Amino acid sequence: MKKVSLKDIATAAGVSTALVSYVLTNKEKEARIGEEMAKKIREIARQLNYQPNHIARSLKSGRSFTIGLVMADISNAFFANIARTIEDEAKRNNYTVIFGSSDENVDKSQDLINVLLNRQVDGLIITPTEGSEKQIAWLQEQHVPFVLIDRFFPGINANHIAVNNFESAYQAVTHLVKAGRKRIGMIAYETTLHHIAERKRGYLEAMRDHRMPDAEKRLKTARYSHLKTDIRTAIDQLCTGPDRADAIFFATNSLAIEGLKYINELRIRVPDILAIIAFDEGEAFDLFYSPVTYIQQPILQMGKEAVRVLLEQIKDQQKTVENIFIDTTLVVRQSCGSKR
Amino acid sequence: MKKVSLKDIATAAGVSTALVSYVLTNKEKEARIGEEMAKKIREIARQLNYQPNHIARSLKSGRSFTIGLVMADISNAFFANIARTIEDEAKRNNYTVIFGSSDENVDKSQDLINVLLNRQVDGLIITPTEGSEKQIAWLQEQHVPFVLIDRFFPGINANHIAVNNFESAYQAVTHLVKAGRKRIGMIAYETTLHHIAERKRGYLEAMRDHRMPDAEKRLKTARYSHLKTDIRTAIDQLCTGPDRADAIFFATNSLAIEGLKYINELRIRVPDILAIIAFDEGEAFDLFYSPVTYIQQPILQMGKEAVRVLLEQIKDQQKTVENIFIDTTLVVRQSCGSKR
Repeated sequence: MKKVSLKDIATAAGVSTALVSYVLTNKEKEARIGEEMAKKIREIARQLNYQPNHIARSLKSGRSFTIGLVMADISNAFFANIARTIEDEAKRNNYTVIFGSSDENVDKSQDLINVLLNRQVDGLIITPTEGSEKQIAWLQEQHVPFVLIDRFFPGINANHIAVNNFESAYQAVTHLVKAGRKRIGMIAYETTLHHIAERKRGYLEAMRDHRMPDAEKRLKTARYSHLKTDIRTAIDQLCTGPDRADAIFFATNSLAIEGLKYINELRIRVPDILAIIAFDEGEAFDLFYSPVTYIQQPILQMGKEAVRVLLEQIKDQQKTVENIFIDTTLVVRQSCGSKR
Repeated sequence: MKKVSLKDIATAAGVSTALVSYVLTNKEKEARIGEEMAKKIREIARQLNYQPNHIARSLKSGRSFTIGLVMADISNAFFANIARTIEDEAKRNNYTVIFGSSDENVDKSQDLINVLLNRQVDGLIITPTEGSEKQIAWLQEQHVPFVLIDRFFPGINANHIAVNNFESAYQAVTHLVKAGRKRIGMIAYETTLHHIAERKRGYLEAMRDHRMPDAEKRLKTARYSHLKTDIRTAIDQLCTGPDRADAIFFATNSLAIEGLKYINELRIRVPDILAIIAFDEGEAFDLFYSPVTYIQQPILQMGKEAVRVLLEQIKDQQKTVENIFIDTTLVVRQSCGSKR
């Protein structure tokens, strides 16, 4: 593929290559080049469809103006929307985002991080997978600017943007108690990831504080790799017998969607027989016959903060680490069976 | 950031750098290096956490083993699922995918294509936006291997993977006619993109063939940039008066989801008062009180074919252009008001 060079532009404009270089790296003022001339050079570059060689530029400026984004699973609406927000915010700062999914797999995560670093990104935004502590610690040793989003590891002192998972879960379960529910279950992922552990802790402490029985027994987990079957087993266990649950708190949107499909199959009426609250939002929750009460994560703010912290870190490697926790909002609708 | 070099590995293994290079580029057989030695070198490389420099490798092999993916909008479930399928299929072929969204915007699309090409991808998979014919033609002139997915331009002879949009729409509208609906409307995007034009043509021809009146009048459009308000206007126009629609065919999942939200607000019962068929699937369609009948696009097959065609093109630039059309499936559920 024949590329247009600075020399081609210089020839077309009748000026020196150095002059073209100054203009196209936005240094015309430093080099005392007139506005008219700079404009003419830019116009010719545009007409010739000049592609600045980012790698060459990066070798000089030390920047590629590209952010690498490692998402857990791009087919999950929560991550897709986070990715979209980060793209928009990066664009506003003249950065481009390139990304991929780790599929909650620690090897894929490492592969993707390697590929992105080898593509000379200036920094990374990552939703770390279970077991990726070493990767994250390694990035830190290498002084790669990065920000963790949605999740973090308490033992690693790195930039992160997260929500108040414990408080959010505590508030949701308390809401179910106040709505008169007596046998509240929770379905979460089977994982050591801290954000899920915090949501479980929020459930358990709210149950204890409100003197609700059998919290441990009613906390079920599903494996990411066996989502559908494990959810069915969990709901079968929770929703049978004289002691059956009258409410379920789902720890994520993917758990809630699979759960609601099965609850529909069983013809369990929401909220009459079973109240529901989910973490995260989803289009499916809006169109469900009993619109689903959910914990709304501030996706826009999370994406903006992640880009801000990363760009500050790229500019100043000595920058202090930021641990940002953002509040969520409980959006109360019909499915939780409360009045408002 | 200090990188482990071939020399570091050579020193640790007590062999020459050239020998390490042969092994790590999988040429140990050509260089007659024993299996034991190759294994030892690989093990040391792993222990030292050696990161092959893709750019250096690409300069030698002419390949970067990376595919660039330009999606219209990653926050739309259809594109997010396509992206995920392409990632999985590429991985199976030892390729990594890096991607971004064009946001249906021709300038963003060009920016992203430039960034990806400057990151030395071996080829591109693109859902082209309205007005991007010149970009696509330019890629072809530059002999960049690429495949269009979901959409294509009839005037440009390039690889593409698409569904039979005309036939799919024709079949859906015919299904509504056979279910006894008399006043069938359609809501599509206002765009010149060929795939949407074909869906409109499918609706219009089915209406004409079945002697249904007022097809032109009942075909409404919404702007991508004003989705919510335009959908409301369209539904208000379709669903009022003595002549009001008894069925609506939505041309995409995003149109259907916005439409169903408003239909819910208006308390129009589906399918009793209004039958619904949507193009594309969606979790929201499964959880709707009247599960939505939809045209299922073979996302897995589309992703696999796109990767196959692209990798063949990368290996053989002289490869014949492939135009692949895949059939869809009408998944009949309650919302269309038919028995099966």
